[in-house]
Formats: sequence, structure tokens, C-alpha cells
Amino acid sequence: MAVNLQFNQHLLPIAGARLATLNAGIRYKGRDDLLLLELAEGSSCAAVFTRNAFCAAPVIVSRDNITKDNPRYLLVNAGNANAGTGEPGLAAAKACCVALAQAGACTPEQVLPFSTGVIGQQLPVEKVVAALPNAIANLQEDNWLAAAKAIMTTDTIGKAMSKQIEIGGKLVTITGIAKGAGMIHPNMATMLSYVATDAQVDKALLQSILGEVVEETYNCITIDGDTSTNDSLVLAATGKSGAVISAANRATFQQAVQDVCMYLAQAIVRDGEGATKFISVIVEGAKDRAEARVVGNTVALSPLVKTAMFASDPNWGRILAAVGRSQIEALDVNAVTIWLGETLLIEKGQPAPSYREELGQVEMKRDEINVRIHMGRGTASATTWTCDFSYDYVKINAEYRS
Amino acid sequence: MAVNLQFNQHLLPIAGARLATLNAGIRYKGRDDLLLLELAEGSSCAAVFTRNAFCAAPVIVSRDNITKDNPRYLLVNAGNANAGTGEPGLAAAKACCVALAQAGACTPEQVLPFSTGVIGQQLPVEKVVAALPNAIANLQEDNWLAAAKAIMTTDTIGKAMSKQIEIGGKLVTITGIAKGAGMIHPNMATMLSYVATDAQVDKALLQSILGEVVEETYNCITIDGDTSTNDSLVLAATGKSGAVISAANRATFQQAVQDVCMYLAQAIVRDGEGATKFISVIVEGAKDRAEARVVGNTVALSPLVKTAMFASDPNWGRILAAVGRSQIEALDVNAVTIWLGETLLIEKGQPAPSYREELGQVEMKRDEINVRIHMGRGTASATTWTCDFSYDYVKINAEYRS
Repeated sequence: MAVNLQFNQHLLPIAGARLATLNAGIRYKGRDDLLLLELAEGSSCAAVFTRNAFCAAPVIVSRDNITKDNPRYLLVNAGNANAGTGEPGLAAAKACCVALAQAGACTPEQVLPFSTGVIGQQLPVEKVVAALPNAIANLQEDNWLAAAKAIMTTDTIGKAMSKQIEIGGKLVTITGIAKGAGMIHPNMATMLSYVATDAQVDKALLQSILGEVVEETYNCITIDGDTSTNDSLVLAATGKSGAVISAANRATFQQAVQDVCMYLAQAIVRDGEGATKFISVIVEGAKDRAEARVVGNTVALSPLVKTAMFASDPNWGRILAAVGRSQIEALDVNAVTIWLGETLLIEKGQPAPSYREELGQVEMKRDEINVRIHMGRGTASATTWTCDFSYDYVKINAEYRS
Repeated sequence: MAVNLQFNQHLLPIAGARLATLNAGIRYKGRDDLLLLELAEGSSCAAVFTRNAFCAAPVIVSRDNITKDNPRYLLVNAGNANAGTGEPGLAAAKACCVALAQAGACTPEQVLPFSTGVIGQQLPVEKVVAALPNAIANLQEDNWLAAAKAIMTTDTIGKAMSKQIEIGGKLVTITGIAKGAGMIHPNMATMLSYVATDAQVDKALLQSILGEVVEETYNCITIDGDTSTNDSLVLAATGKSGAVISAANRATFQQAVQDVCMYLAQAIVRDGEGATKFISVIVEGAKDRAEARVVGNTVALSPLVKTAMFASDPNWGRILAAVGRSQIEALDVNAVTIWLGETLLIEKGQPAPSYREELGQVEMKRDEINVRIHMGRGTASATTWTCDFSYDYVKINAEYRS
């Protein structure tokens, strides 16, 4: 069902990063629901977390732990979000860290826990803890495919990508996985993503790179505007390739990380709950980037725009109406120009004389649709990626407990 | 399909306000799609219009005309919004005013035009103009029921209410109608509403009353967050009852107007596109009213909350997540308490020990559901009314051109 997305099977191992997955019986039967990712000693980590005030217990613990020490283990479970679980939930997340620290010979602070799934149910700690020895025994570098599958919830397809670049004559590999299909909105949604590289990157530089990459990738996607309690993205650098990243060669490395994150972020939209179309809302000529983002998000989140996209109905009035209600100060509609794909809809606020229904129909029938809006009031731009709104979105969210 | 809503048939005529409806063939067959409302000389009018920057041509004309003179005619068509129609659309709206002024012996500025329906198609002016003589010939005071029906688009039921009060020993009558079912959000959505009274109210006082009433009624409802290009609300006072409203007796009159508007606003939500539940999101203990509104709107608009309501699934984690992403500055989740109906879900940020799934299930099975959120940081409150999100919302909006 995902729009032009296949499960990328060509994943490259990262020296210094070993993974294990298994079925801990947390919620699902017949599939793995636990991922353990081990990082070699000396690895550095950067992370970005949800800005939801009601963030999940593992987010609180991970956000704290990563400031204290270099993580050795990432522990991820699917099926239970450990969110809205109060003090017992916090204790549960910490108990997992303590158990893993004992089994894995590190400190509890060197464990980052992550959870995704149903909100408001206590995490069955004993099941997680019972699974740890087995997980540790099965860690292997060439296990990213299984990892991508183990963290899925309403995803219909695993999301993963690898990329290689040469830096200073050394081959650097980046491999990332992600999960997420609903509750997706800028600033991290029901989204978990883990990216590892064998480059050697100082922690502060790694965090700076990740911050800039997120702004161009994960913070540009939205499915339903619902920012989840659990979103987390980790970028780990093992250093095993021997390639050292510095301010001088940062750009090449950052671009490669961005390519991986862009693929993963867009893959989440392509696999958006009930998605049948992949939609890019490109806003140009805005006063500043924030304004471009507001307009892009308003159009991308409009249920009326999204249902029209689902119906392949060139009902462009809904795009117009969404731009008009974006609460942009002193918006001069007579400066606004709007295209659907290559077809001009509105030119300087007026319906384009060249527009014909058939032209709009051709654009709307595509499974990848570009909406381009020129605000005519500046030079800033931003793109938001989203998907359409179908019966299946309602079906999935009426029947599944996310 | 509307939630606990029946077409109120007991509508009282307003002396000095005559109405006619007919099928002008604008879009629909077999039903009226044009409403003409005539106000007696000496009537005063107040109005509130959409804040959408891409507002419809009739909104531009009406907003202008009402400042120039006391309106004698309100001319409303369904089936075509005359929005996104540029200069030709503006000319069309003005042409309707000129034609009606000629046929009805007033100035074009004394006509307020309104349109609702498909965006982006030119209004067939000739059809409207051709219908005017017939409309004028058929004006009658006891015609509110037909008027409520003539302005419907995706509405499944007419929305109308009358109320009588005594002021200074004189009987004052208020009758109102409204249409709207989707694209509903504070600051006027695809919503048209006309309320008339036989009280005598100075124009400035009438506008002040309407402004306060709207803040408590129409600005508290949301269906899909899409504020339309056409929303308009008019309150007309003919003065024929002889009851004069002043600062001294304003409160009684304002409350009665508010009762009528509250009924109509909530009726729009009850008839929300695809609605199966009527949901009140009550936010208390907020720092100020704006904050209470933001939280209320965020919860009320969350597609995940709305699909859970549709499924009668007590998936309260979605309410929690929506509160958490409301972007309230320095929100202390440990001060937040949340109830579903009478059932305590979250007490000071912690899951309530008394909560059991069966209790939540009972609340969610109701067709009228209260979500109450106490922010624990102030004394301001606000209520937002919304409906759930069902398959039929997608169906209606994928198939109908609004």
C-alpha cells in the first residue's frame, strides 16, 4: 500500500554496531518486537527527541542518560509506548536499563531505552528483562533488516537505507532504519529512527550535524499533525572506519547523513496510514522560513485538501482556502501564485485563464503530486511532505490502539 | 445521521423580515438553492465574516456594503461559493446587487450577497438575476423553514431555532437559521447563519452584542479546522416589536441571542460531516482564555482523538498526547488532570489508580462525550465543541466538491 516504496534490502553493516532482535511477547505474536543495538566502546551518539510535553518514560530516561555518558546500548520495544504511565512507567524504563547494564557490562546510564506502541499501558518489564540474555548472545553486525522489521507498529513496510562515501581516502558507511506511519508531525512524531556510521565524529559535532539534518528531513514531514509522545532519532558514530569528521570535511558527511534521513523521513510519509499519494507542498517567496513552514503545514494538514487528493479531484479551491487561513500577517492574496504540478491554478490571486479542469485532473491522478505556492512577499522557501487522507486512515486509527 | 438533532419545525416569524426561496438552477435540481431575505426599512444589521485571506467575492462585497448603509436585502445562494473566482467573481457578486436593487427599489449597497458551495467556479449571474422577480413576489414572513433548507449544502438536516423573551413588557422574538457541516473552525467556516429579531437595536450596540455572542458560540466549534472562504453571520433587528434594547436591558436580549446562536452552532457540529458523536472539550485551570482555547482546539482537531471517538475506543493516550503537543509554554504535566465524562483518567500527570478500561468504555460508548482537562495553572476556561472522524467524513469530502 505504501506509495512507491519498497523495503530496501541492501543494508550495509556498520563496524562497531551489532544488533539483535527477538519476540519478547510484549504485544505481537509471530514477529520480533524487541531490538537491541550495541555500540562499540568509544562510539559517540547524538539524539533528537519529541517536544511533546507528555513525553514517554523512555524519552525522559534517554534524554537524561545521553548527557551523562556515551551510550553502549539502545534498547527498543514495539507494541507498548510506555507513555502516559506516570511514575511506574519511569521506574519500568529505568529497570530495563539496570537489567541491561548487568547483562551487558555497562552502567545503566549507558543504556538508551525506546518504546513505541500503545499509550497508557504499563510496560511488562519482566518480559523485556527475560529476553535480554538471548538478545545479547545473538548480537551481530549484519542484522539491520531484522531490526527495521522489529520496530514496526502500523507500518506496512520496513524502512531502511545505507549509503557509502569516501572521506580522506577512507570508506565511510551510514545505515539507518526508521518506523512510523501515523501521529507524524514536525518535531518528531510516532517516529523512531536509528542511524549509525563508522565515521569518527566528536559528540558535539555529531549533535550539530544531526540538528541541521533533522531540520531538512524529519521536521518537514507531516501525516496527521499529531506529534507523538515517543519520537526519537539517534545518530551513532563508531569510528571504526578510521575516517575522522571535522569542520573541514563536515559537509560531505552531513550530506550523506541527510540523504539517509531524507529517504527514511519520506519513506514514513509514503507509508503514511492509508496513504495512496505522496504529496510535496513547496512554498516559495515567503518572508521567512517560518512563514513558509506555516503555510506548507496548513495546506499539508488540511483534511479537505487531503481528501480531495485521495479522490484525485482537482478541487483546488481547498488549497486556496488553506493558504488563506494560514494566519499569515497582512497576506496580500493578489501576490499569491499557485501551481498543481506544472499546471498554473492561481496567478497573482486570480484564477489562471489557462487553467482547464482536464489539466488539473491529469495532475491529481498522479501518485506523486506537487503543490507549489509562491507567496510573492520574500525569498524564503520550505517544503512539507505529506500523504492523502483515505478511508484506510480512519480504519487503521479506529481499529488500532496507537 | 446528525447526533441528537432534529429539524426544529417551530419557527416564529419576525415582523419586518420576509423571506422567499426558489430553485434558481445554480447547481441543484429538485430543491431550492436561492434565499432572499427582505428587511423592513429602519432595520439595523450586524455581521461577522470569515478571516480567511482568500475570502469569497460576496464576503468582500457584503463586508463593504454593510458599512455604507442599512441593508434591505440578504441574497443567499447555495451550490456555488463564488470564491477563488478573482475579478470576474467580484463583478458577479456586484451584478447581483445591482439587479436586486433595481427589482427591489433600493441601492446596490443595501444588498448583502452570500454564497456557499463549490469554490473556483464562476457564479451563473444570469440564473440568479432571472430568479429575482419571482423571489420578490413570493416574500413572506412565515417562511423560515424553507429558508433553512434552501441554504444547505452537505448538511443532512436544516438548522433553525426561535426564541421569545419579554423586554420592558413587550414580546421580543428571535429566529435564526444556519448551514454548515464541514470546513468548520473558529472564526467562521463554511458556515452561513442569519438571525433576525423584532427588537429595536442600534447598529453599534447590535454589532457589540453579536461580537460577544460569536465568541461564546460560533467561535467555539470546530469540525476539521478548515476555515472557509465564505463564512458569514448576520444579525438583523427590525424593531417591529417596539422593544428598545439599550445598555440597561442588553443582558437579557444578548442571552436570548446567544441561546439561539448556541443552538445553531452546536447543530452544525451535530450535523458535522460523517459525525456519529457530539464531543465537548472543556479546558479549565488555564492561564488565560487563549491558552484554554489552544488546548481545546488541539484535542478537538486531533485526527487520532477523533478516530478513537468514532471507534468508541477509550484510547485516552491520544488525548494526553494532544494536550502535550499543544505548545503551551512551560507546561507542567504533573499539574494536569483529565476526565473522560465522569471518569478520572489522569490525576496531576499520573494515570489515575481508579481507572479501569470498563469505565472508559462506558464513557466512550455514549453519543455525547465530555473530555475535561484541568491544566492546573490558572483560572481561565473554554469549551470547544466538535464531532468524531468517521469513514463518512472521507466519503463526503472525497466525493463532494465543497
